[in-house]
Amino acid sequence: MADRPALKGAWTAKVITLFPEAFPGTLGLSLTGKALDQGLWRLDPIDLRLFGEGKHRNVDDTPAGGGAGMVLRADILSRAIRMAMQGRPDDRARWPLVYLSPRGKPFTQTTARKWAAADGVTLICGRFEGVDQRVLDHHRIEEVSLGDFVLTGGEIAAQAMLDASVRLRPGILGNAASTEEESFSNGLLEHPQYTRPATWQGLTIPEVLTSGDHGKVAAWRQDEAERLTRERRPDLWEAYEKLRK
Amino acid sequence: MADRPALKGAWTAKVITLFPEAFPGTLGLSLTGKALDQGLWRLDPIDLRLFGEGKHRNVDDTPAGGGAGMVLRADILSRAIRMAMQGRPDDRARWPLVYLSPRGKPFTQTTARKWAAADGVTLICGRFEGVDQRVLDHHRIEEVSLGDFVLTGGEIAAQAMLDASVRLRPGILGNAASTEEESFSNGLLEHPQYTRPATWQGLTIPEVLTSGDHGKVAAWRQDEAERLTRERRPDLWEAYEKLRK
Repeated sequence: MADRPALKGAWTAKVITLFPEAFPGTLGLSLTGKALDQGLWRLDPIDLRLFGEGKHRNVDDTPAGGGAGMVLRADILSRAIRMAMQGRPDDRARWPLVYLSPRGKPFTQTTARKWAAADGVTLICGRFEGVDQRVLDHHRIEEVSLGDFVLTGGEIAAQAMLDASVRLRPGILGNAASTEEESFSNGLLEHPQYTRPATWQGLTIPEVLTSGDHGKVAAWRQDEAERLTRERRPDLWEAYEKLRK
Repeated sequence: MADRPALKGAWTAKVITLFPEAFPGTLGLSLTGKALDQGLWRLDPIDLRLFGEGKHRNVDDTPAGGGAGMVLRADILSRAIRMAMQGRPDDRARWPLVYLSPRGKPFTQTTARKWAAADGVTLICGRFEGVDQRVLDHHRIEEVSLGDFVLTGGEIAAQAMLDASVRLRPGILGNAASTEEESFSNGLLEHPQYTRPATWQGLTIPEVLTSGDHGKVAAWRQDEAERLTRERRPDLWEAYEKLRK
């Protein structure tokens, strides 16, 4: 596949980070990486250290009130944010401005769809104990969480959220995969999959899948998706049942 | 810091993947990277492609019953799993064997604590439409999900889960951060943080934090953690209230 120059106006992720070398990382491989090379999306890491102060370009300071760790300074981070958002839409629906934090709203497939429909996103990766609350308030920054766990920093979370969003953009997945039958596309977990060999370790493929009857296959898959969701994720099942009524 | 040779018996992550070059990725930076260099933990990517068949070392085939995408073959994946688990404890509590999949049980801080307390983990990264269900059944593989969203592959999810787990191992964080006051350590989201400058954009640090009264600071932080959790995560708040009673 021939490389095309990055299109002006291509969907863009700006990532404010103390570890710009973490990018593109895994996003540079496979389908997201091919699409990056083709200019179908852009990834601009912004090195927060460049906005630091003094000989050591300090970006953080001890928490007011005491305690372990260090807090990213509002004034330093604000400079990086102003640079990242220059010339970008002020409408947060068109260009989300997000701090990755376990205190935030959980990231879901719905968030990925919203971000994919925007012009781009700016993500702020934390490290240490967090950021000064005032910078979040002043810049109307949304806090989004990858899940109910704590990471060393926001860089891996940023990569996960960008992967989930970018793959929903037109032309990224090609024929290699489908977003139509996958988990969450219809509120259910995905049905089990099987492929050759027909028998393995004495285990066979369910007969209906090799019957050639497309209607029966579709019905079996729907039943299995419902069963798995009911058994594994009563919360999703409840939401699905409500929508159906 | 002087590098030490990898300790025999150090906590080990084995990762079965079609993209071994994705590792260590971001895990090779910062605190997890230092700890990796020091031999405090080990990371062994296992290239699934090496177990493939034919000239092109095929690892997948079309889904039984039809549909888009490709499914990882049970026989191929099983060979990689047998190699990864050779000489490892058969007790899944001591050595979890996990397939990263949006159909799995959500990964949380509790999962990270369990994995950190084990001898190591083996993670299987999917790609395409998934893996043959029979390999999951045959090897008693646990499915774990990073969250309610779909990724291009399991590699970034593996990095997130390993980061969350490894940082809980002794000696990894050092004095750079604390796991005691952070989100989820006590069932609450973390309180807001502030640092110098004292005034920024006309916004000041809450007076109590600069009062020097440690008791008042602790009480304010507890109140704020409870308020944030109540406002943002009614689900966590409900669980916290139940535990308190």
